[in-house]
Amino acid sequence: MKFGGTSVADAERIKRAARRIVERREGGAHVVAVLSARGKTTDELIAMAEEVSAAPDAREMDMLLSTGERISCALCAMAIKDLGHHAISLTGSQAGIVTDASHTRARILDVRADRIKAALEEDHIVLVAGFQGVSTATQDVTTLGRGGSDTTAVAVAAALAAEVCEIYTDVAGVFSADPRVVPDARKLAAVTFEEMLEMAASGAGVLQLRSVEYARNHGVRIHCRSSFDDTPGTVVVQEGENMDHAERPLITAVTHSTSEAMITLLGVHHQPGVAASIFEALAEAGVDVDMIDQNRPTGGELAEISFTVPREHLREARAALAPLTGELFSELRAYEEIGKVSIVGAGMRSHPGVAAKVFKVLAAEGLNIDMISTSPIKISCVIPRERVESVVRALHAAFELSGPDTIREEEPVRASRTE
Amino acid sequence: MKFGGTSVADAERIKRAARRIVERREGGAHVVAVLSARGKTTDELIAMAEEVSAAPDAREMDMLLSTGERISCALCAMAIKDLGHHAISLTGSQAGIVTDASHTRARILDVRADRIKAALEEDHIVLVAGFQGVSTATQDVTTLGRGGSDTTAVAVAAALAAEVCEIYTDVAGVFSADPRVVPDARKLAAVTFEEMLEMAASGAGVLQLRSVEYARNHGVRIHCRSSFDDTPGTVVVQEGENMDHAERPLITAVTHSTSEAMITLLGVHHQPGVAASIFEALAEAGVDVDMIDQNRPTGGELAEISFTVPREHLREARAALAPLTGELFSELRAYEEIGKVSIVGAGMRSHPGVAAKVFKVLAAEGLNIDMISTSPIKISCVIPRERVESVVRALHAAFELSGPDTIREEEPVRASRTE
Repeated sequence: MKFGGTSVADAERIKRAARRIVERREGGAHVVAVLSARGKTTDELIAMAEEVSAAPDAREMDMLLSTGERISCALCAMAIKDLGHHAISLTGSQAGIVTDASHTRARILDVRADRIKAALEEDHIVLVAGFQGVSTATQDVTTLGRGGSDTTAVAVAAALAAEVCEIYTDVAGVFSADPRVVPDARKLAAVTFEEMLEMAASGAGVLQLRSVEYARNHGVRIHCRSSFDDTPGTVVVQEGENMDHAERPLITAVTHSTSEAMITLLGVHHQPGVAASIFEALAEAGVDVDMIDQNRPTGGELAEISFTVPREHLREARAALAPLTGELFSELRAYEEIGKVSIVGAGMRSHPGVAAKVFKVLAAEGLNIDMISTSPIKISCVIPRERVESVVRALHAAFELSGPDTIREEEPVRASRTE
Repeated sequence: MKFGGTSVADAERIKRAARRIVERREGGAHVVAVLSARGKTTDELIAMAEEVSAAPDAREMDMLLSTGERISCALCAMAIKDLGHHAISLTGSQAGIVTDASHTRARILDVRADRIKAALEEDHIVLVAGFQGVSTATQDVTTLGRGGSDTTAVAVAAALAAEVCEIYTDVAGVFSADPRVVPDARKLAAVTFEEMLEMAASGAGVLQLRSVEYARNHGVRIHCRSSFDDTPGTVVVQEGENMDHAERPLITAVTHSTSEAMITLLGVHHQPGVAASIFEALAEAGVDVDMIDQNRPTGGELAEISFTVPREHLREARAALAPLTGELFSELRAYEEIGKVSIVGAGMRSHPGVAAKVFKVLAAEGLNIDMISTSPIKISCVIPRERVESVVRALHAAFELSGPDTIREEEPVRASRTE
C-alpha cells in the first residue's frame, strides 16, 4: 500500500491511512506501506536549502529531503500502534533499498528485503519511507527524484512477490481524460502497462513513469485507487490479462499536458551528425526532450528541427544551444504557449484510420497542428495552449469515451483480482 | 564545535555557524561540528506525534525526532560548500554513535569514528547530527534525550582525542550567577568539572549534566562560548589545571532553580526499609529525586521525609506513592511554590564557615529554610519561590562574586589554551 503526500498531509489523514492499513491487515493480508512526505514538506525543505545555499549540494539535498518520508512513517507507525497492531517504520536504507550514487535522481539497483521479511514474519505492519535509498558504494542516503515513492512501492512489491501494489492517491483511479477537464470522463477498470506508460508520458499524473516501467519489467500488479473511499480504482495489467478484447475500445484515454514548451531551430545544416550534436548538447545539460520533428524544405540545403521540452528546462535548453548558433543552425525560436493533446489506446494497433479521425476533429476545431508524434498506441499533437481543454473534450466525445462505465463507479471491477 | 538549536535557528544563523566553522578550518584546525535541531523543530515534531497518538511509541518517537538534527547538518554542509570548503553531513548512525536500545533516553556505548576520521583525512569538514545514535542490538535509530547534542559533541571529541570540544551557545559562557537575575554577574574564565557538575545539577542551564560527566570521565576539555562573537567563554578543566590557586575564590557561583516541587511525607514509620520502599517506588515511576531530608521528632516513632522532584514529575510521584499511603506513611503534602538556591565552589572545601555565612545571609532576608542539602563543594537551600531572585542577588553580593572580571569580558582568558 502506497500513500502519497496528500494522503498523509495532516494528523487526521495519517490516522485515516493507519485505519486503512489496519483494515487490510485484519482482512488477512500482510501489509507493507510506503509513505511519501506529508503534503508540502518536500517543497518546504527545498525552500530551506535555497535560503541557505545558492546551489545546494546534491548529497546534502538528499540527506535533507529524505527526512520528510521518515516523519510520515514514524507518525503513521504511532497511529497504527494506537489501533492495537504492531508496526515498525524503516528508512529506505533500513528497508534495503539499494540505489546507485546519483544523488537527487538515484535508480534502484536492488531491494534487500530481509529486514522487511523478518518484520512481517513477526506479524508487524511495516512502514517504509518512500523516495529514498542508500548507495552501497558510498553509504550515503540517496533520493529517487519526484514521484519516487511510487517506484519504492513497486520495487518493494516486486522484492516481496506481493499479490498487488496498491497506490492510494487523491483521485479515484485512471480516467479516460482528466475529470477536471472532461466532467463525464470514465474511470477505467483496467489499463495495460503500455497504455499506462504512454499516458504517464503524455500528461496523466496519476502514476510516475518510472514506477510503471519498473512494474512492467518485474511483473508487479498495480492497483491505483482513492485514499478517501473503498471503491476499486484502476488495475494496471499485462496486455491480454483480464481484459475483455471483444469489448476493447479503440481508444482508452485522451491525455493532455500544458507544461511543455516547443523550440524550433531554423537554418539547420542538413548534414550527418548535426542533429546528434544538437541533442547531445541538450542531454548533457540535463534537458528532457520529448517530441522531435524534422523537416527539410524541398530541394533546400537547410532544414528545420522542432522539439518539445518541459517548460522549466527551457532556460537550460537555450543556454546549451547558444554556443551552436551560427555554427549548426541559424536561429532558435521558442514557443512557450503550446500544449499537447494525446490519444492513447492499445486498440489502435489493429485499427487503421485513428490518426485521420484525430486530424478531422482538430480541423473541425479550426486548428493547425504544430507538431505530431506517434507510437503504435499513441498519437500526440502540439497545439496552442489555450485550445487544449476544448480539444480534449472534442476528442473524448468523438471517440465516445464517456460510455456507460461513467455511471458505474459503485460497481466492483469485474476483471480485478486485487481484493 | 557544537552549535545548539538557537545557533542554527534560521538560514542566517546556519550561514553564520558555517562561517565560524570555516574560519576555524582556515586557522588550521580539523573540524567536526555537532549540530542540534533548528530552534523549535523538536517541539514541533513532538506536537505532531501527540496529534497522531495519545501515547507515541518510543522507537517511532526516535525515528521522528532524529530528523531535526539531520536537517540542520545537511543545510549547514550546503552553506559550508558555498564558502568553498568540502563538507559532509553524517547521521548519528553514519558517525558511529553506538548506543544502548533505550529509546528516547539512550546512553552512548561507543563511538566508532572510522568514517569521521576518513572524512577528516580527505580534508572534509564533518557535520554530525547531534542527539542521536544507533542501537547495534536492534539497528534502530535512538535519541539521547534533551540536551543530548552536548553529549554527542563530547563523545565525538573523546573518540577523536580532540584538542578541545567547543560548545557554542546563546550565552557567553558560565557566569557567577544567571546574568538575567544578577546583572553584574562575572563570566568565569575556568571552572572545574566538579563545580560544573554541581552547577548543572543545581540549575545552571549552560551545559547538560551528562555531557559534563562524560567529559570528566574521558578527559575532554570543554570550552563553552558564545556563537554570536569571538570572545573566549568558559573552559571546564580538571581541578588544578590552569587554575591559579592563590587567586581561587571561596565561592565560584550562585545557581538557582525554580522548576522543582517539594514533597513532605508525614507520619513515616521509622523502621529499616521504609525509606528504601518509598524511593524505590519513585525510581520505578521514573521520578528524578534531587534533595532528600529526613528528620524524626525527638523520642517519637514517626518521622518526616521531605524531598524535591522536577515539578513535571509531581503527578507521577503522587501516583507512585498513593498505594503506600496509610501503610508506610500517613499523609503526603506537596509544595509547588518552592525554589532552590545553591552556592558552588571548590574553594569551600578548605574554608570552614561558608554554610554559616549562607544561613546568615538568608536570615538577614528574613527567610526560614525549608530544606538544606550539602556536598563538599555545594550548599543548596529550598526557599519560597518568589524570594529566589533576591536571595541569589544577596548571596552573590555577600560572597563578592562580581569582582573586577565583570568588566574584563573583552580580554582573552589567560589560562585558556583552547585557541
